[in-house]
Amino acid sequence: MRLLLYAGKGGVGKTSIAAATGLIIARQGLKTIVLSLDPAHSLSDAFDLDRSLMDKNRGKPIRVAERLWIQELDIYEEIEKNWGEVHKYISILLNTSGIEDILAEELAILPGMEEISALLYVNRYVKQKLYDVIILDCAPTAESIRFVSLPKTLEWYMKKVFSLERRIARMMRPVAKRISDIPLPEDEYFQAIERLFNRLQGVDRLLTDQALTSVRLVTNAEKMVLRETQRAFMFFSLHQLSVDAVIINRIFEDDPSSGFLGTWHKSQKEYMDLVHSYFHPIPIFSVPFYQTEVVGPEKLLKLGENLYKGKNPCDIFYEHRPYEFVSENHRHTIRLHLPFVGKDEIDLVKVGEELVIRIGNFKRNIILPRTFVSLEPKKARLEKDYLTIDFGGNNEQEERGNHC
Amino acid sequence: MRLLLYAGKGGVGKTSIAAATGLIIARQGLKTIVLSLDPAHSLSDAFDLDRSLMDKNRGKPIRVAERLWIQELDIYEEIEKNWGEVHKYISILLNTSGIEDILAEELAILPGMEEISALLYVNRYVKQKLYDVIILDCAPTAESIRFVSLPKTLEWYMKKVFSLERRIARMMRPVAKRISDIPLPEDEYFQAIERLFNRLQGVDRLLTDQALTSVRLVTNAEKMVLRETQRAFMFFSLHQLSVDAVIINRIFEDDPSSGFLGTWHKSQKEYMDLVHSYFHPIPIFSVPFYQTEVVGPEKLLKLGENLYKGKNPCDIFYEHRPYEFVSENHRHTIRLHLPFVGKDEIDLVKVGEELVIRIGNFKRNIILPRTFVSLEPKKARLEKDYLTIDFGGNNEQEERGNHC
Repeated sequence: MRLLLYAGKGGVGKTSIAAATGLIIARQGLKTIVLSLDPAHSLSDAFDLDRSLMDKNRGKPIRVAERLWIQELDIYEEIEKNWGEVHKYISILLNTSGIEDILAEELAILPGMEEISALLYVNRYVKQKLYDVIILDCAPTAESIRFVSLPKTLEWYMKKVFSLERRIARMMRPVAKRISDIPLPEDEYFQAIERLFNRLQGVDRLLTDQALTSVRLVTNAEKMVLRETQRAFMFFSLHQLSVDAVIINRIFEDDPSSGFLGTWHKSQKEYMDLVHSYFHPIPIFSVPFYQTEVVGPEKLLKLGENLYKGKNPCDIFYEHRPYEFVSENHRHTIRLHLPFVGKDEIDLVKVGEELVIRIGNFKRNIILPRTFVSLEPKKARLEKDYLTIDFGGNNEQEERGNHC
Repeated sequence: MRLLLYAGKGGVGKTSIAAATGLIIARQGLKTIVLSLDPAHSLSDAFDLDRSLMDKNRGKPIRVAERLWIQELDIYEEIEKNWGEVHKYISILLNTSGIEDILAEELAILPGMEEISALLYVNRYVKQKLYDVIILDCAPTAESIRFVSLPKTLEWYMKKVFSLERRIARMMRPVAKRISDIPLPEDEYFQAIERLFNRLQGVDRLLTDQALTSVRLVTNAEKMVLRETQRAFMFFSLHQLSVDAVIINRIFEDDPSSGFLGTWHKSQKEYMDLVHSYFHPIPIFSVPFYQTEVVGPEKLLKLGENLYKGKNPCDIFYEHRPYEFVSENHRHTIRLHLPFVGKDEIDLVKVGEELVIRIGNFKRNIILPRTFVSLEPKKARLEKDYLTIDFGGNNEQEERGNHC
């Protein structure tokens, strides 16, 4: 079984690529589902499905080809199914406060509810082996990060805060009516949250299981998009998810008959070189800019064939963790997998949140997690294809750079 | 003074258009700031600024041209400035629970903190009259919606939930140590939240003030993008913000020498017609697809001139509320401004969450807020350029459609 995440900035074409991947895999004979976490909900548009059909389906999986299902989360349906007691309590609160009905329904959706609903599906689909391959069409980067960090946050919340809140509610319930017109939540509310949490158990292990889960970063050959792709790369690594491919979408192919495209072609070629220095040694795939919108199974399949060129999308394209961040006992270390790099002098320069590594002709830029931004690289060593960089001290030397 | 919001799906080019608008307005002699709420932070990239300069600036406004400043929120700086006590309490909780430092710092950013920080700036800039024009480069649609609905949610929270929590904490603090190793927040924590809320007072009135605030929806002539633009249009109207323009970015201009662009040109022309039926009578602007990435002040300015074609971006391009949703005493009504529509038969068909209105040759599609999706249009009347539609009952008749 495989769990494949397609992630990237809004508008790069994640949905089309996730959909195309689903078609390719289903044709191999594997039972596949593409689950969209993007609130923009364009998965059904990619398959050119009738919108009203999708709306009537209310967020359940819908079959679009042999062995292929797609699913767009409907947050209102999820709330009814999973958040009944929680939603009921919030609605009571909202109703006692004179917020108009029409807004109350929108406001009772708390941040995180969509991500938790998606995690519940992932957990269930994997554990009940309902599909051979689960493809996630992720939300734009910021929400995707929340998605992968939620299991950890929730575990912490349940262990620490939840039980305290529950006990306080139990102790205060008899007297609360005297001090406020707001009712305290009943214990059913806490029971519902507990049940929900139990259904999430183990999902963080699934996401960080390298044999099961791979993240593919989708990007375009444009300055603004590449910056966010670098940042996503850092975040997924920080949360110990494996990125095993970078997909550059919408590459203008050379067309000497048109000056317009010629100029774009040249600029994209420059960015392609940058992509290699940002993401090496992760394999890089590319997809041409098509002459028409990629809508409908036929065009999606063509996109998929062009993207994978006979390779199997279920393969693990890169087996190593490209980088790991370790902070223990006030020691902060970054460990990078850098095969094929000679034993030249290692040159490190930190500029703002970015670390530039030069080893001979090789150059690599990485964006640092927040804890590292105020530190300086102190010592670097290359051993058996791994570069280990120790950080320490403060950033007084930042402006001069730091050469090891 | 004017507050201009540029909103739309990720990747449509909001940032470039907001930046270009800033340049045009500053050249008119007005003191202007472009504030980016997009966590992707590409505003400095649009102006081609040195990244390290931006990082050192730590989220403060930076001058990029005469009378023009840009600002990218740095959530970590905002936390230090605004969320000190709250962040401290969460950090204590996280530290008592064995979450690694490196993740704790990321996890202590709660959803909504970025949006509240941005609202604080808007409130301050308007009230202290620090700039003549404030341009917001909004986050992708889903977060933008949270941004505009937050003032209402917070007001409700502060009035109802906050004071109860505060009183409970006060009563329980002496005994809490005996029942849990988690400390209850001190009253400084509640005081800090209260101060923060006081600084937000009045910001919802600014956002819904038609003379001050206009929303411009940025979109592309593509199926998936248009759907989200329709949805954004509904949400902003629901929250009583005025949308006064729709901007279609990246229009391929006719180029008979290239078959590639010819095909795109044709498909875009079809979508342009759709745009008119979706957003009429809101004025529609368009921007060509440029031969190179729009980066740097020179190219941005050219984009701006092409977009506004001599019109003043500070004008209110459309004075009416395009639609209003009213739900009172179980009566649900939609009121649409539809000038230039004859008194033909009014035909209404609801398909899923979409309402299709036909009056003679005129056709208009609107996406409905959730409360209306389970209702049916019952009665419609056109009076003085306004179409009023009463909704009621359930959706039993949905499949047959409903003709008034």
